[in-house]
Amino acid sequence: MRLATSGQRSGTVRRANLSAIVHELHASGPLSRSELVTRTGLTRSAIRGLIGEFVAAGFVTEEQPEPQGTPGRPSPLVRLAPSRATVLAVEITVDSLAVALVGLGGQVLESVRVDRPRGHTSVDETVADIGELAIAVGGPGPSRDPIVGVGLAVVGTVRRADGFVSVAPNLGWTNVPLASRLASELAMDVPISIANEADLGALAELRRGAAIGVDDVIFISGEVGVGGGIIAGGRPLTGAAGYGGEIGHIPVNARGAGCRCGSTGCWETEIGERALLRRAGRRVDGGRAEVDEVLADAVAGEAIALAALESEGRWLGIGLAGLINTFNPELIVLGGLFGQIHPFVVRTVRDELDGRALAASLELVRIVPATLGIDASLIGAAELAFEPLLADPAAWLRPRRASVELASA
Amino acid sequence: MRLATSGQRSGTVRRANLSAIVHELHASGPLSRSELVTRTGLTRSAIRGLIGEFVAAGFVTEEQPEPQGTPGRPSPLVRLAPSRATVLAVEITVDSLAVALVGLGGQVLESVRVDRPRGHTSVDETVADIGELAIAVGGPGPSRDPIVGVGLAVVGTVRRADGFVSVAPNLGWTNVPLASRLASELAMDVPISIANEADLGALAELRRGAAIGVDDVIFISGEVGVGGGIIAGGRPLTGAAGYGGEIGHIPVNARGAGCRCGSTGCWETEIGERALLRRAGRRVDGGRAEVDEVLADAVAGEAIALAALESEGRWLGIGLAGLINTFNPELIVLGGLFGQIHPFVVRTVRDELDGRALAASLELVRIVPATLGIDASLIGAAELAFEPLLADPAAWLRPRRASVELASA
Repeated sequence: MRLATSGQRSGTVRRANLSAIVHELHASGPLSRSELVTRTGLTRSAIRGLIGEFVAAGFVTEEQPEPQGTPGRPSPLVRLAPSRATVLAVEITVDSLAVALVGLGGQVLESVRVDRPRGHTSVDETVADIGELAIAVGGPGPSRDPIVGVGLAVVGTVRRADGFVSVAPNLGWTNVPLASRLASELAMDVPISIANEADLGALAELRRGAAIGVDDVIFISGEVGVGGGIIAGGRPLTGAAGYGGEIGHIPVNARGAGCRCGSTGCWETEIGERALLRRAGRRVDGGRAEVDEVLADAVAGEAIALAALESEGRWLGIGLAGLINTFNPELIVLGGLFGQIHPFVVRTVRDELDGRALAASLELVRIVPATLGIDASLIGAAELAFEPLLADPAAWLRPRRASVELASA
Repeated sequence: MRLATSGQRSGTVRRANLSAIVHELHASGPLSRSELVTRTGLTRSAIRGLIGEFVAAGFVTEEQPEPQGTPGRPSPLVRLAPSRATVLAVEITVDSLAVALVGLGGQVLESVRVDRPRGHTSVDETVADIGELAIAVGGPGPSRDPIVGVGLAVVGTVRRADGFVSVAPNLGWTNVPLASRLASELAMDVPISIANEADLGALAELRRGAAIGVDDVIFISGEVGVGGGIIAGGRPLTGAAGYGGEIGHIPVNARGAGCRCGSTGCWETEIGERALLRRAGRRVDGGRAEVDEVLADAVAGEAIALAALESEGRWLGIGLAGLINTFNPELIVLGGLFGQIHPFVVRTVRDELDGRALAASLELVRIVPATLGIDASLIGAAELAFEPLLADPAAWLRPRRASVELASA
């Protein structure tokens, strides 16, 4: 929680206090009033009044807990009503398309994922497919729960301000105004937020996964491409326009191979799925199934698979050393391909880091596999979509009916 | 200015409001009351009351501006009293030692810099020298203006929490409890804050130099070593323990030379002063004088000097490409050696970036030399030392006399 430094008027203070409460409940689940007093620093009477506003608007319910046989009245338990405010979360990867309906508090109410053949899927098809999947999860529609936002994760470089995909090489996309395309398709009058898949994987691991409560985190995710999501000082590092975190394109090998980005020797050319498969003597376009076979071979002790993983671990360590020296993180979370191969490469990575990372920073850092698995970025997309509501819940604090009228205005 | 999200009590609000006012005056110089109303979002009457507190404590003065012949009373001009709260700023580099007395608002009241022979200067000598220089600038002493803090910039890896220097290879230091050593030497009962030189150079360029008003900045500084200071989303990137920003030790050349950090192929081995001098066929320990000669040779068209600078520019571009892809910065500020060679390498750097940085991020970034020159880190050290006061001026808002008693208690 950040503290105010600029001047506060009472309306601002009320909004900040409502936001603090809903943030806590969204992040931690049901909490007693006393716990909310402790976490927000607000007085009991302020908490009572603000909770009253949330209850009147149907955002939260309060339960009287069972008497515990101890003196004094137990503090009521405050719980978000997950279906009172929902978001549509969408993920576009090279292999699949996923859509979920997620309730305030992070509960996944409905979810669907469909595999797609690898290759260059058109924007038109993708947007139309998302429209159908959104209906399948019970998203848009007059009788549904109020949807307050749409969040989308995509394997590409995204300008956050307007959801413009500058380039998504593995989809074959350049300069796609994806947010406005999706707005036309969905015909919903709510904010649509778009961000890079790895950035949202990082956000999800931070809020709901391996990195809860950690302020300095590097999330690295791989399939064909390699992406990164960085949390610095408790906040996502987006850069000036939201293009930050493209750590797959850090040059690590001056004499390296050409990269799909146009450069040479990018980290991705040494640690991406294709590099692993090439070194293991397999089809570089084989995808996850082929990676699984490399790992099975390694378990069986086959030399070429072991050597490929050894090389993967070395280059993973070289790049991570640079990131550790730059960011001094507490935690590195390995997602996607890197989560999968973690047990096979962790020792080699450590060896490489011992020789390359500054001792003081290396001592502090833990390296762990992601815990949210394949849905990390989808969960992150939901978190992104909830951000406007979390920042200013007051704007949604109207009786249910009025909110629907507002949406259709 | 960050906004509150957690609960606000009235004492917290008052502190936040006092902090907002002193931040604005410290950053921007004298401002009218109306301008303070605009910048802080506080009401006129709140500003009047809070300014009254500052005036009573001697922190600010108010002036009635000349009547302007326009209707209405002109708004009084509010000005910090620079000598009411001062800090000692200290810088330890490989070549020199500097100490300055800096007033609130950033005015350098006294300053001294002494050259030192390169090499391994002992901690004892350095601390004793700082003590003498502090007296020379009129620092400690019963009759002086109240000093509210000490800030120190050092060419090393620093744990910020307790000012512990983990390693400063070019000084030959390891594991030095520098803050406590300095506290004994100076015998002043004020906070001593220590940070890496490049981090503080970045802070200074952000507050007083090339990067004013820019939220996403990479500052890269070089002499023997190469250091970085990073501002992400308007905040300094320190990492979990303050060790962040060691961008000189990003591996860029898999087949590169050994680095003093123990790794191989670090960026520093390709772009540091020694690499430039080696390529130019000069004494690698020659320091700035030798670099000046390389530049003079380049102006005269000597091939070896031109080739050395070409190579320097290539490697500078390679590393910057990785940083641009990672951080999506608006501005890269070249300090120290890199500021000096900027005109000679800017074209080569741009060529390299065109081939390696992602187009969307590259379009947004400007690359400029630092504007504060040799004193950047010293100015940054002063800014660091003012931070406790800026964050909570209320603690210092006592009449002058009481503050002196407190310090000697």
